Amino acid sequence: MNDFTQLFDPRAIAVVGVSEDLSRPSSQSVCALIKNDYAGAIYPINPKYEAFEGLPCFSSVLAVPGEIDLVVIGVPAKGVLPIVQECASKGVPFVLILSGGFRETGESGIALEKAVLQAAKAGGVRILGPNCLGFVNVHANVFAAFGSMTRPPQLVAGGVSLVTQSGGFGYSIALSCAEQGIGFRHVIATGNESDINSVHLVEALLADALTSSIVVYIEGVHDGRALLEVGRQAMKVGKPIFLWKGGVTEQGAKAAASHTASMTGRYDFYQALFKQTGIVEIQELSDAVDFLQAFAPRKFPNSNGVAVMGVSGGSAIVFADAGERVGLNVVELQESTQTKLSLVVPHMGAVHNPIDLTAGYFSMANQEKLEKALHAVLEDPQVDSLCVNLATTGKSGSLAAAQVLARVSQTTVKPIMIFSSAPKEEFSNAQTVLAQAGIPVLSSPSRVARAMGALLRYRQCQERMRMDEDNAYSSLSFKLEGLDALLAQELLTEVSSKSILSRIGIPFGEDVVLGLQELASPAAPSYPVVVKVISQDIPHKTEVGGVKVGVGSAKELSQAIQDILTSVGQRAPKARVEGLLISPMIQDGFEMIVGVIKDQVFGPVVVVGAGGIYTEVLSDLSCRLAPFGTQTAMEMIAELKCFAILQGARGRQSLDVPALANALVLLSHFAFEHQEHIVEIDINPLFVLPKGVVGADALIVLGGQD
Amino acid sequence: MNDFTQLFDPRAIAVVGVSEDLSRPSSQSVCALIKNDYAGAIYPINPKYEAFEGLPCFSSVLAVPGEIDLVVIGVPAKGVLPIVQECASKGVPFVLILSGGFRETGESGIALEKAVLQAAKAGGVRILGPNCLGFVNVHANVFAAFGSMTRPPQLVAGGVSLVTQSGGFGYSIALSCAEQGIGFRHVIATGNESDINSVHLVEALLADALTSSIVVYIEGVHDGRALLEVGRQAMKVGKPIFLWKGGVTEQGAKAAASHTASMTGRYDFYQALFKQTGIVEIQELSDAVDFLQAFAPRKFPNSNGVAVMGVSGGSAIVFADAGERVGLNVVELQESTQTKLSLVVPHMGAVHNPIDLTAGYFSMANQEKLEKALHAVLEDPQVDSLCVNLATTGKSGSLAAAQVLARVSQTTVKPIMIFSSAPKEEFSNAQTVLAQAGIPVLSSPSRVARAMGALLRYRQCQERMRMDEDNAYSSLSFKLEGLDALLAQELLTEVSSKSILSRIGIPFGEDVVLGLQELASPAAPSYPVVVKVISQDIPHKTEVGGVKVGVGSAKELSQAIQDILTSVGQRAPKARVEGLLISPMIQDGFEMIVGVIKDQVFGPVVVVGAGGIYTEVLSDLSCRLAPFGTQTAMEMIAELKCFAILQGARGRQSLDVPALANALVLLSHFAFEHQEHIVEIDINPLFVLPKGVVGADALIVLGGQD
Repeated sequence: MNDFTQLFDPRAIAVVGVSEDLSRPSSQSVCALIKNDYAGAIYPINPKYEAFEGLPCFSSVLAVPGEIDLVVIGVPAKGVLPIVQECASKGVPFVLILSGGFRETGESGIALEKAVLQAAKAGGVRILGPNCLGFVNVHANVFAAFGSMTRPPQLVAGGVSLVTQSGGFGYSIALSCAEQGIGFRHVIATGNESDINSVHLVEALLADALTSSIVVYIEGVHDGRALLEVGRQAMKVGKPIFLWKGGVTEQGAKAAASHTASMTGRYDFYQALFKQTGIVEIQELSDAVDFLQAFAPRKFPNSNGVAVMGVSGGSAIVFADAGERVGLNVVELQESTQTKLSLVVPHMGAVHNPIDLTAGYFSMANQEKLEKALHAVLEDPQVDSLCVNLATTGKSGSLAAAQVLARVSQTTVKPIMIFSSAPKEEFSNAQTVLAQAGIPVLSSPSRVARAMGALLRYRQCQERMRMDEDNAYSSLSFKLEGLDALLAQELLTEVSSKSILSRIGIPFGEDVVLGLQELASPAAPSYPVVVKVISQDIPHKTEVGGVKVGVGSAKELSQAIQDILTSVGQRAPKARVEGLLISPMIQDGFEMIVGVIKDQVFGPVVVVGAGGIYTEVLSDLSCRLAPFGTQTAMEMIAELKCFAILQGARGRQSLDVPALANALVLLSHFAFEHQEHIVEIDINPLFVLPKGVVGADALIVLGGQD
Repeated sequence: MNDFTQLFDPRAIAVVGVSEDLSRPSSQSVCALIKNDYAGAIYPINPKYEAFEGLPCFSSVLAVPGEIDLVVIGVPAKGVLPIVQECASKGVPFVLILSGGFRETGESGIALEKAVLQAAKAGGVRILGPNCLGFVNVHANVFAAFGSMTRPPQLVAGGVSLVTQSGGFGYSIALSCAEQGIGFRHVIATGNESDINSVHLVEALLADALTSSIVVYIEGVHDGRALLEVGRQAMKVGKPIFLWKGGVTEQGAKAAASHTASMTGRYDFYQALFKQTGIVEIQELSDAVDFLQAFAPRKFPNSNGVAVMGVSGGSAIVFADAGERVGLNVVELQESTQTKLSLVVPHMGAVHNPIDLTAGYFSMANQEKLEKALHAVLEDPQVDSLCVNLATTGKSGSLAAAQVLARVSQTTVKPIMIFSSAPKEEFSNAQTVLAQAGIPVLSSPSRVARAMGALLRYRQCQERMRMDEDNAYSSLSFKLEGLDALLAQELLTEVSSKSILSRIGIPFGEDVVLGLQELASPAAPSYPVVVKVISQDIPHKTEVGGVKVGVGSAKELSQAIQDILTSVGQRAPKARVEGLLISPMIQDGFEMIVGVIKDQVFGPVVVVGAGGIYTEVLSDLSCRLAPFGTQTAMEMIAELKCFAILQGARGRQSLDVPALANALVLLSHFAFEHQEHIVEIDINPLFVLPKGVVGADALIVLGGQD
């Protein structure tokens, strides 16, 4: 792992490019360091000046007498390279380049960025940037930054670190959080990421004792596998990552491409990665604020059973609506719970869930009753989290409720969250009590529901990762004898693709292969059958008329053979035809497609979806990064719209979902192990049967190791 | 229309149930009236007191010497009826019942509510409530309310009126808006709506000169048609309605049922109504805040073409992502626009869309350049709205930009919106300038995008309503000769259903009807055919084995006839079989279902969807309230997932969408005209062909006029 100690906690900082124009980035950085009492040495650098803002000013990095941990560069792009070379000579470990004018501006910028990076690498210098706002270590007052990051309001110290590819928008996230009292550790803008990238930084922050949660804004990463590892590590060490992925739509990606000239990568693969790691996706500034608060107590619900209580029926309904959409369940309370509640809830209220305490209930006079009500609900085994709607409850009622909630919260591992829409001046006393007790307060019932949904998904991911580890396939080797040689050498036809996949445990129907000389008197299997051309020159057989389905008799078979040969002869005249394949036609299963794509960013990804025209028209697909275990496979199947069909919708018989899951797991391990050879695998269709699955066509596409 | 003048602007208010306990609802109301200098007469009523808070206190409503426009009742439920009777005697036009303990508590409460309503009706008294927080006329300081509605902060006067079935949650909406400086006219909680309901109130507010926009929270309405009319009226008078529908999920609806004991109605029908009227659905408190601001200038984009400019690349990407999801299009700027921009945008920026002005651009020094840039973009004919991302721009930069934006905004009809995440203290000067210029400022780029999406949909709805009016089917009569008699008398079979639908212009295939005596030697049409049983006792033929598809020869036809008669004989032994129907099997179309449901709340609703198993499993359905025109029908088809198939996805031929739309329009008018007889219509399947449509099965279900 990268050691960024000297970057984040530099003992001495040199800032190149200070100017009497205090609006220049370098000037802003030095002013902020001075103003905020940065404890290390500050060396302003500009050959024009003797002094800058009361500090001695040096002519160059080399002229600085002492050691320097970090050099901040804010001069125009063309002046950056010699300074980096000086840093290399002096043995400076870290350089931060604020200046723009590199990769984002086109070809000459790309060349310049490359030259700077080479000089840095040659001299053992690590680079943050270029084209970035810099970073702030809030705990140590390191302001290696400019623009909004050095302007008021000053962030307060806390446990949240932020890593962002967009300084401007990232800092908008920080400001939104700061407004709600959230404190920060490091705020880091990465810009063009010529050397140090977001994933390196997140990895380092996971090891930073003062960072407890990490917020990330990215447009794209180059190494999806590194992000996968960092995400898994984050789950292991219990530091949640809240990630906003920009450029997730066609238009957003286009905008991103012009922004930092970086590829954004396939969003569905990112989403798969988030699900596989527990990285929490955020899509609005309020998500960052809400989720940071919701996760802060580190209490996670063991099930989706939730109770909602309060003084506003409408708020409970809105909570239930939003809750259902994120998988929460407003559960029935046990009889005994309702009995206990009936002793402390007014007759006109409701002791079933949602629990209606009636208007005006939250008051000093009712504190004892409320405490009993809360205990009763939290002790109900069906309830694993609780939303309390204070809604518009005023000053004294809110405080009364807060005091009770603070006491009760200490006695339970179940998460409790509050909705209040009381104005700040009415709610500040209650807020203080609740904040001390670590009880999140959000500003709408639907936001509470979504935050609880995030807690639940995180908990479920944790559990799934544990189960998949227990069921690891690591003992199973897919390096079957001779497979590597086969994969390395051959162009694969349907026949050889099926043969390989059969060997790893994916069943296919019993095919009959007809050589060219056997076509006149074909062997007759049981009808109906599918007839397909065999040729390594024809990967997409349907497109050249190389497939006939529903062939029902010997006569039809002869006709089908003729038709195929004629059509292929016309539409793919150069293809070398080896023969024909006759396969049983499978009729009592559901047609799906299963495949593997080797992605540039994410490596092998397994995809499953409903077959036929609906696959692409309805985009009924789900994917995960290979390899994975059974729980993950089951989850990806359950995401599909056609899952209801597999389960036996509308009186149909239910199909063998576990067998499908097993096929996905096998395929994921196989594809991962042989990723150096396999570019793509298509099993299309794969029929899910009442018992088992059976593939009807398959193709493995091989590629070089480039 | 109801005249609520005396309710909203009462010259004299009597409040029954004041008490020395000032926390009691009636006491709170009187205290608020006094404190806020309500100009009319206030009559506290309680036989126990001579005076209340310095006012003479009366023993009863009848004891009050002068006329009373409004009596507010805050006594326990069982004491309400006699007071209402007194109000009737005295000729009081309006009574507001704050008290709970009515319908929401069960049977005895229902009876009590009914008795109170009867007494009121008999005496010409209109009732608001019971079980509600009351209302506030902010302009006239009428505080006929208690709880949060009488607590600080005081709402400022403005043009927004709020109608809410949930006082608590509704007031949370008001507080969120108030926090952003939005001013109010009336805030009205309707509670149980025993008499005056939300729709009555919205209708009255549309005629209120001081109300410009209306926010509504409802869980359900009894008369969906009244809401439809009010929604259409709102569009006509240009007062947008922002509506939050609570209880839209299964769990939410369950919670709502226990809250005010009201049915919530089918959410998809509500959504159809919103689309047909331009009622803007809100689903978060921030939506209310954002949309009210966005709609305030009454500037609507003529197309989805949007430009985004600013100093934060990340913000533009986030805007583009959110924009694509709501149908905006970050358009290519014309060459000439880009040329103009290149004169005023720094070289390192970008003159294509999103326009990158580069960090620090917003400044007093750049005001002239910014003005030129804005004009260039707004004059581009592709651009119909503009988002300017100030992002974290500080005090002086924001003010500089605001001044220019205020000037430029006066010169254009295109909506401009701002994203700023600068802290309040940094942004207040700019905010003042922008507010005066009527330029909305929202707190994230994605919120700007969603608000722009709402403006666009509103504009599109306006346009569609205009086009559908032009294409009105009002001249077309569906009262074909003899149809009413037929609909009133007969139980309909497939044959008679098809015959009726054919007469209104929906085509069906040429069927052959075989009487029971003709079954031995069936007439042979061109194969393949579908064979179906005819029996008015068998509405769902498939379920009893009464249908055979793909019958390909005379031999198969004989077999099919036997099979059907055997199966029907076993599975529906009591059904009277009239014969068999032989229909051509349609093979080159796409199978859909089209139908009408007569809903208790909404009346006849037309539904269209993809046919086969996908209909219900994938819920690929879309609906609109009948009757409607071609534009609406086209829109409902375009919503379907299978729309891509109809358009000719993946190289298929495109199918006749206009013919499908025409069928929906015809059906909608027919069903609407005969709603007293028709309970349900199913055309399943209806095939959409390359040219035209053809139904293959149909059923009209009739019902009494109850």
